[in-house]
Amino acid sequence: MNQFVSYTPTRIILGADAHKKVGEQILGYGHKVLLVYGGKSLKTNGTYQDIIESLKDNNISFVELGGVQPNPKLSLVYQGIRFCKEHKVDFILAAGGGSVIDTAKAIAAGVCYNGDVWDFYMEGKTPEQMLPVGVVLTIPAAGSEAGCASVITKEDTIEKRTMVNELAFPKFAILNPKLCFTLPKNQIAAGGADIFAHVMERYFEPVGGNEYSDRLCEATMKTILELLPQVLKNPENYDVWANLMWAGCIAHNGILGSGRKEDWASHNIEHELSAEYEIAHGAGLAIIIPAWMRYVYKEHPARFLQFAERVLDRTLVDNNFVELSIKEEEFIQQTINQLEEFFRSLGLATRLSEAGIDDGRIATMAKRATQKGSLGNFMILGTEDVERIYRLAL
Amino acid sequence: MNQFVSYTPTRIILGADAHKKVGEQILGYGHKVLLVYGGKSLKTNGTYQDIIESLKDNNISFVELGGVQPNPKLSLVYQGIRFCKEHKVDFILAAGGGSVIDTAKAIAAGVCYNGDVWDFYMEGKTPEQMLPVGVVLTIPAAGSEAGCASVITKEDTIEKRTMVNELAFPKFAILNPKLCFTLPKNQIAAGGADIFAHVMERYFEPVGGNEYSDRLCEATMKTILELLPQVLKNPENYDVWANLMWAGCIAHNGILGSGRKEDWASHNIEHELSAEYEIAHGAGLAIIIPAWMRYVYKEHPARFLQFAERVLDRTLVDNNFVELSIKEEEFIQQTINQLEEFFRSLGLATRLSEAGIDDGRIATMAKRATQKGSLGNFMILGTEDVERIYRLAL
Repeated sequence: MNQFVSYTPTRIILGADAHKKVGEQILGYGHKVLLVYGGKSLKTNGTYQDIIESLKDNNISFVELGGVQPNPKLSLVYQGIRFCKEHKVDFILAAGGGSVIDTAKAIAAGVCYNGDVWDFYMEGKTPEQMLPVGVVLTIPAAGSEAGCASVITKEDTIEKRTMVNELAFPKFAILNPKLCFTLPKNQIAAGGADIFAHVMERYFEPVGGNEYSDRLCEATMKTILELLPQVLKNPENYDVWANLMWAGCIAHNGILGSGRKEDWASHNIEHELSAEYEIAHGAGLAIIIPAWMRYVYKEHPARFLQFAERVLDRTLVDNNFVELSIKEEEFIQQTINQLEEFFRSLGLATRLSEAGIDDGRIATMAKRATQKGSLGNFMILGTEDVERIYRLAL
Repeated sequence: MNQFVSYTPTRIILGADAHKKVGEQILGYGHKVLLVYGGKSLKTNGTYQDIIESLKDNNISFVELGGVQPNPKLSLVYQGIRFCKEHKVDFILAAGGGSVIDTAKAIAAGVCYNGDVWDFYMEGKTPEQMLPVGVVLTIPAAGSEAGCASVITKEDTIEKRTMVNELAFPKFAILNPKLCFTLPKNQIAAGGADIFAHVMERYFEPVGGNEYSDRLCEATMKTILELLPQVLKNPENYDVWANLMWAGCIAHNGILGSGRKEDWASHNIEHELSAEYEIAHGAGLAIIIPAWMRYVYKEHPARFLQFAERVLDRTLVDNNFVELSIKEEEFIQQTINQLEEFFRSLGLATRLSEAGIDDGRIATMAKRATQKGSLGNFMILGTEDVERIYRLAL
């Protein structure tokens, strides 16, 4: 096990209608709020009105910035920063999913910085101060509600990059499972693939000696595989949504990676895809993960055997692994097929071609994905490896 | 799933020799430290000297309070409070296990309070301010290093009571697995039973609908059952200790209970035992848990069947549970026997008689355990129930 620091300071509040008390959570942090959100669904389902009412009840004034889109854009972040400075905002409330939360975090960093906020995403600079951020979560997926990362896309250069900083942990995240009842099925499925990916990126690692977090990761992946089909079938099951929302937080708040040499190649490979093609991040992951697995499994086959047994309930009868025999290769390939089949059963495309993407931009994406160096730890991937993974996904 | 708030702000730092940088963690919180510890082992194994050196390196002055004993006493807490006020201490560093940490938390609460600190344990009063506390952990067991509870015993009335407050979360907990290499085997075993109990108290609950935390609890219990025998056999296995220390934190920082109607009857029943007899808390739990299980399993047998299958790898062939048949009763009883046998294999007594305890004080303990009301949620236990559980443990 590697040495680690685990720090998860975000207060998670889960309950029916919990968002109706959001104002009380903000008191103590600020009194002038920027409310960041995405599209009109927040207003049509009444959540917007509930939040406004709670802010008013607590004498908190607010301005708002709607219109955040999937794969959130730097230009809107700049607009939010100007807006906050103009209105002397001291707290940012994100009401939405990962794109809204990541935009809120970017604005929170930019308001307290004299330079270009993109420095934190591209240049490795570290914010020394940020406005406090709170979250009302409307879809379990990105895990940004309980984590300290923010992913933003710069439109002109098509660069999708990440800022990671402890100051970016939200002060609180409010999870009301009822807000998920009306989510579109394709968003549910893509969100679920994203949660699964956050665990799998941590699970497939080369160091070993992490028996406990192995089991925590397996428990989380197994839960997602069991519960996702249930909410697709019965989207108003409160308990199942509650479990998925909670799993989405734990999947990405850092706990499951403690002591592990995490991978994250699939995420980086996918980021180029969704920057280039406007495919949802989770939908892109459902395409990239099986291809990544097929390309890398020979590096540490034992990890795939354990994944098969403990997560997918597949057991190789004679499981005394010594070297990779044909029988084991077939078994692992079938395991990956089974995972791909699971994604398909959720209604997700698992091949680029099914998502209407051809090989035209593969070389460019592979180059851009590796412009800062190789990807991954389970297997270290250069530009050519990444290109091959894109091609395996065609 | 019940509504919940999950808040786990303690920074966990795990690594070989991580305690040698404890001073850096204290900076920002305080400059005059009270170092609280237990017996002489801290000095003989060099940990005391490492800590002092790091404090000096960071220009942090300190005073010290040694001599904390298992089942820590209120009188020493009072002494620590006087000492802190006298020396204007602004940070408390606990170097030890649960007793040392709980003493440090009690002192931290008492220093900032004009009344009697025992009010927080007995009268339901809530501390409004506490000194910050940090931890160098020397044994995984109590989980107090990552939690917000403190258990103290008032000697004259033999009352062992708990304070729970968010202010009592340590600012940091440093986990160096190497510090565990020289622990006595009976302490390792009792500590392991304590960790197991923290999970089992959360796992055996009557509400249901907690599929995710079910699996997280099962993952944690399974890890403890697998790794404890390994460290008893090979006490210098760094990775195994690292996993156990990490599991000890997660087991009791509140995450595993989120959304669950937790039980805690076994803990309360045990507390009377260790207050009365000076048996180690974990050793007492190894005696009480099997007896509690035998007394309550009929309330929710399905939970015991799931525990058997997922934690102990025991499967009832025809597992379509409808009502409790003789076959299922036998199966559950064998499951409890297997857990008791596991505790015995660690060298722990599992019966009061084996620990030299007769039935002389049972009625008194049962009365005192229930003086504030009934215990437990899996099955609600009155004074007579508790008395029967003590007798089942004879």
